[in-house]
Amino acid sequence: MSQAAESDLVERLLDGEHRALARVITKIESRAPGYRDIVSELYAHTGDASVVGITGSPGAGKSTLVDKLAKFYRDRGETVGVIAVDPSSPFTGGAVLGDRIRMASNIGDMDVFFRSMSARGQLGGLSTATADAVKALDAFGKDRIIIETVGAGQNEVDIVKTADTVVVLVQPGSGDDVQMLKAGILEIGDMFVVNKADMSGASRTVAELKEMIHLRDDPRANLDMGHHGIDGFEAANGTESDEADEATDEETWMPQVVETIATTGEGIDTFVETLDDHYEFLERTGELDEKAKQRAAEEIRQLLQGDIGALLEAELESQGGIDSFAEAIAARETDPYAVTEEILAPLRECLDETDD
Amino acid sequence: MSQAAESDLVERLLDGEHRALARVITKIESRAPGYRDIVSELYAHTGDASVVGITGSPGAGKSTLVDKLAKFYRDRGETVGVIAVDPSSPFTGGAVLGDRIRMASNIGDMDVFFRSMSARGQLGGLSTATADAVKALDAFGKDRIIIETVGAGQNEVDIVKTADTVVVLVQPGSGDDVQMLKAGILEIGDMFVVNKADMSGASRTVAELKEMIHLRDDPRANLDMGHHGIDGFEAANGTESDEADEATDEETWMPQVVETIATTGEGIDTFVETLDDHYEFLERTGELDEKAKQRAAEEIRQLLQGDIGALLEAELESQGGIDSFAEAIAARETDPYAVTEEILAPLRECLDETDD
Repeated sequence: MSQAAESDLVERLLDGEHRALARVITKIESRAPGYRDIVSELYAHTGDASVVGITGSPGAGKSTLVDKLAKFYRDRGETVGVIAVDPSSPFTGGAVLGDRIRMASNIGDMDVFFRSMSARGQLGGLSTATADAVKALDAFGKDRIIIETVGAGQNEVDIVKTADTVVVLVQPGSGDDVQMLKAGILEIGDMFVVNKADMSGASRTVAELKEMIHLRDDPRANLDMGHHGIDGFEAANGTESDEADEATDEETWMPQVVETIATTGEGIDTFVETLDDHYEFLERTGELDEKAKQRAAEEIRQLLQGDIGALLEAELESQGGIDSFAEAIAARETDPYAVTEEILAPLRECLDETDD
Repeated sequence: MSQAAESDLVERLLDGEHRALARVITKIESRAPGYRDIVSELYAHTGDASVVGITGSPGAGKSTLVDKLAKFYRDRGETVGVIAVDPSSPFTGGAVLGDRIRMASNIGDMDVFFRSMSARGQLGGLSTATADAVKALDAFGKDRIIIETVGAGQNEVDIVKTADTVVVLVQPGSGDDVQMLKAGILEIGDMFVVNKADMSGASRTVAELKEMIHLRDDPRANLDMGHHGIDGFEAANGTESDEADEATDEETWMPQVVETIATTGEGIDTFVETLDDHYEFLERTGELDEKAKQRAAEEIRQLLQGDIGALLEAELESQGGIDSFAEAIAARETDPYAVTEEILAPLRECLDETDD
């Protein structure tokens, strides 16, 4: 695709053509040639949408809740885009395609633009791809963007962290969910929704969540919880503590617990109210800008890491491939440090010359 | 420390001086200046030791088992080195220092060289540091090297994977352990030791383990188990499947389950017999060489990643720091892709010139 054709695609997206939006997201998802120029062009047009990330285990009622949330926004006259991400699936569509059809039929207008995204074998880049897709929806002019993802692994955490507000959906009385919350998700939730609140055990789940939120804000309790050896949790935990330290005198957001019955729509109004409260808090305290900067820094790091990895692989190949190095090491002809130095030498020399 | 002093330290280590060995490992652990030259120099002298990695949750009886294993080797006239790694502790010694004293008093000779290592804030590099410490023990002339680590997170998995044989210690009847096994460790165990085999529930644990091993070798079962969203598990799972595909016609190792009562020494002989069987299998099938090559490739990748990260951070700093880029992005003056390209441009240009 030529540069001109890409610019044309961007033009059509900015003009509000849903087909162009869909094509751009496909390019983003598959890392098609030229997708970077497209995202770069779109960037200047972003910054007006509010982004909600929703995660929770399968069966907690995520898609129904997202459906109701989208409808609520539409009824208020706002436009909505939904990105459903399934990191465990290598395919687009599939299981989530059903949701897509369901939503279209329920709401019946294209202002709820629904799109599923999958890993496609490049797990590491999925959060970057999600962030890029959000940019496309934002530039398109969607007022509200919802990122929906299944589960609680590190990938899911990275994905929902690209949102302004992180919502964790919990099913009452499921021991699994309490385990999940310990494993990284609790730390990043701005809001917890106990869905199926009419189920037995719902009030206990609410109480447990409130207790957990209390513990999370207690540094001594944090220490206790940091010993599970799960990467995601410890990373999130670390960030959380740093922020808390800096902001002791400032207004802070206390994670909220909301009860809903998504199937009947009960509690959705309170849910949206709390979402609005959080966004208003982010704007008022300058946290929204702060988050945007942190995300930008994180995006730079992710891109640099990916690009430098590709540069290195190319450099390794041009020097005979990693296997030949590994064989030489196994034969004790050389060692990993000498090899690393050898591979990096051209890069170091270049950088030294540039700096001079 | 001068190059000459480092070479002297290496000489003394190769001459069998335990104090020099201890100093080298301290340098490796703290990434002291010159440690890379030391490891490089030692490399040519490695390759004679067999390395066993032992992991399991706290309280499963790891240190007692390691103690008895070391004694068994000593009684056979072999020399032994033990590295105990605790990724959750930022300190050296501490909790594991007790073990160190205990072992010294139990065995009473320095041919069991015991050393603890900790994260010291550089989690990512702990598996590289462990591999380097193993090299030091190997070059020193220890016949048997035991790596002992607590828990089952990704870090622990990376650490025990630096061994030739991976042993997973399981405590009978603990639901926790079954959970742990699902989360990454099952995939890498060459052997499972049910310790405290006199406890109630031991035979059930053995049966469950055998069932799990059976499931692990069934590709359909693997598919089912791959949906937990835990990075470590999926990575290990992927590798496992690839290997299984390649080696369908070749002799394969079926993970063994062994019962021990470490406190009384019961079952230790069978444990060592199975360890010997596995090592003999590795040698006979060429797997030992294959593993050495894979480890070498992995070490190169880890080192490259770390070094290139440092190069990038320096490059970022020299261009004004990541924060200034992030602010410009948040203000929509530029975008992450443009920034990444800008930062990498000097590198790309240099490499292109070098290739010409």
